[in-house]
Amino acid sequence: MNDPTHQSPPRPRATHSRIAILAPGLLGASLARAARARGLANSIALWARRPEIRLRLEDEPWCDEVFASAADAVEGASLVVVCAPVDCIVPLVREITPSLSPRALVTDVGSVKSEICRLAHDVVSPKADFVGAHPMAGSEKSGMEHAREDLFENRPCFVTPLDNTPEEATGKVAAFWTALGCMVSTVDPERHDEIVANISHLPHVLASLLCSRLLSLDPGWRNFAGGGLRDTTRIAGGDPRLWREILRQNHEEILRAVRGFQDELEAFQTALANHDYFQVANFLERGKEYRDRLRP
Amino acid sequence: MNDPTHQSPPRPRATHSRIAILAPGLLGASLARAARARGLANSIALWARRPEIRLRLEDEPWCDEVFASAADAVEGASLVVVCAPVDCIVPLVREITPSLSPRALVTDVGSVKSEICRLAHDVVSPKADFVGAHPMAGSEKSGMEHAREDLFENRPCFVTPLDNTPEEATGKVAAFWTALGCMVSTVDPERHDEIVANISHLPHVLASLLCSRLLSLDPGWRNFAGGGLRDTTRIAGGDPRLWREILRQNHEEILRAVRGFQDELEAFQTALANHDYFQVANFLERGKEYRDRLRP
Repeated sequence: MNDPTHQSPPRPRATHSRIAILAPGLLGASLARAARARGLANSIALWARRPEIRLRLEDEPWCDEVFASAADAVEGASLVVVCAPVDCIVPLVREITPSLSPRALVTDVGSVKSEICRLAHDVVSPKADFVGAHPMAGSEKSGMEHAREDLFENRPCFVTPLDNTPEEATGKVAAFWTALGCMVSTVDPERHDEIVANISHLPHVLASLLCSRLLSLDPGWRNFAGGGLRDTTRIAGGDPRLWREILRQNHEEILRAVRGFQDELEAFQTALANHDYFQVANFLERGKEYRDRLRP
Repeated sequence: MNDPTHQSPPRPRATHSRIAILAPGLLGASLARAARARGLANSIALWARRPEIRLRLEDEPWCDEVFASAADAVEGASLVVVCAPVDCIVPLVREITPSLSPRALVTDVGSVKSEICRLAHDVVSPKADFVGAHPMAGSEKSGMEHAREDLFENRPCFVTPLDNTPEEATGKVAAFWTALGCMVSTVDPERHDEIVANISHLPHVLASLLCSRLLSLDPGWRNFAGGGLRDTTRIAGGDPRLWREILRQNHEEILRAVRGFQDELEAFQTALANHDYFQVANFLERGKEYRDRLRP
């Protein structure tokens, strides 16, 4: 029974001798804290663009080395996690590629995947492998001051290989996110973008538009707001610059999702205008059926 | 200086020798607990339709007497709070009116006010006064098991007198809700219905329709949901029967609010379809401007 040839195939290693995390905001800093707490790296290297952030990083127990250059930060790392906003990911990958170790793995946390995965793959291949990821662990808050060691625990995480991504690379990246506490699902980037257009980007658009509509009606009414409006619109507090770029990169799928919702809203409006309360109740009941089965 | 004629006019009394609370669900039971904790009544009488609820009420320290008949419960009460669903409020007011003490005050917690205030006023006048109220303190949860003594603390509360409601009655009802911890605003019922159509009923409709749309796309995607979808749709878990009745009673204002939102969504869709990211960002920025100034 001790004959190694009879063991089940080894699970991909989630631990790395050296991890480089680029742009430690809410996600990147939480990732560093979680990786340290779970012992996933012997050494954690960070790169931050702003000098004042680098200064703060030097005092953090979850940061072993700080670099002023992203290319320097990735040297010797077996895993690089790019935590920059979606429009900065590919430029950063381009910047670090000459310094990547052979067969290094590069992953990211971007909310849109098709464009990033295709371009980043072209940049790093054949030297290294890019396997995109998207942990559903964001917040309307940003910045490393909100970082939490448990941010990824029990959160869904997409891992989005291309057709030609080596299985071993996909397995290692999936193992890393799993080791951080995520529930990993592997889907292709286009499918990812369709799903999140509906379950994440459309809700964001609706929250923003509800708020922009209320702003033009009577901003003072906000003083009467109950918990319902507060929860429904929380994500509208997100950074407009980040979201503008998400809407640009996932343009086609979000447009499709918005149009699908417009049809739903038009059907509801017609039912309400016709005093068809059987139909009105049907929308409410279907909504509750979906909501009641959402994970807590 | 001790001459009472030189004192400022007395503030309306918020305390009552006897308060009757009809239908103690989440709001009614929270109200009874808060009234007891704040010493607003010497005696609290409750009526519940279901025998098993009445049995549980007998053991509660915030309940002095339990009645099987709503008419019996209001006898001798100087304040009656009707906490039933919106379609049951006027029928209950009709049932209790013969037993009301002369000059008793009747208030409620209904989410729609025009129809209820007009009809309830006609029923109780001239024997007693009905002054509608709407504390913005609900939840998608219902039932007295979720009741909390602090449910009303720092919550907005509308008090909605008619033109011919005596000022003294309005003042006493406002004083009661203030004493419970609410921030009271006095507006006429029609204005109330316009405001809540936009800040409460429209958000509910959008949350329900987002969920009903996602149910028809692929219910399994709910497993990938992040905190954004969860918060945005929390209120879609509310009771469809209650909300159907709210939509019926506030039909005109909600229809107007829905159509206003449809215009906003169409303008956004056009901007996105045209790749007009300047306009797209403008919607996001206006949304954030509104959301950032919402009270915590």
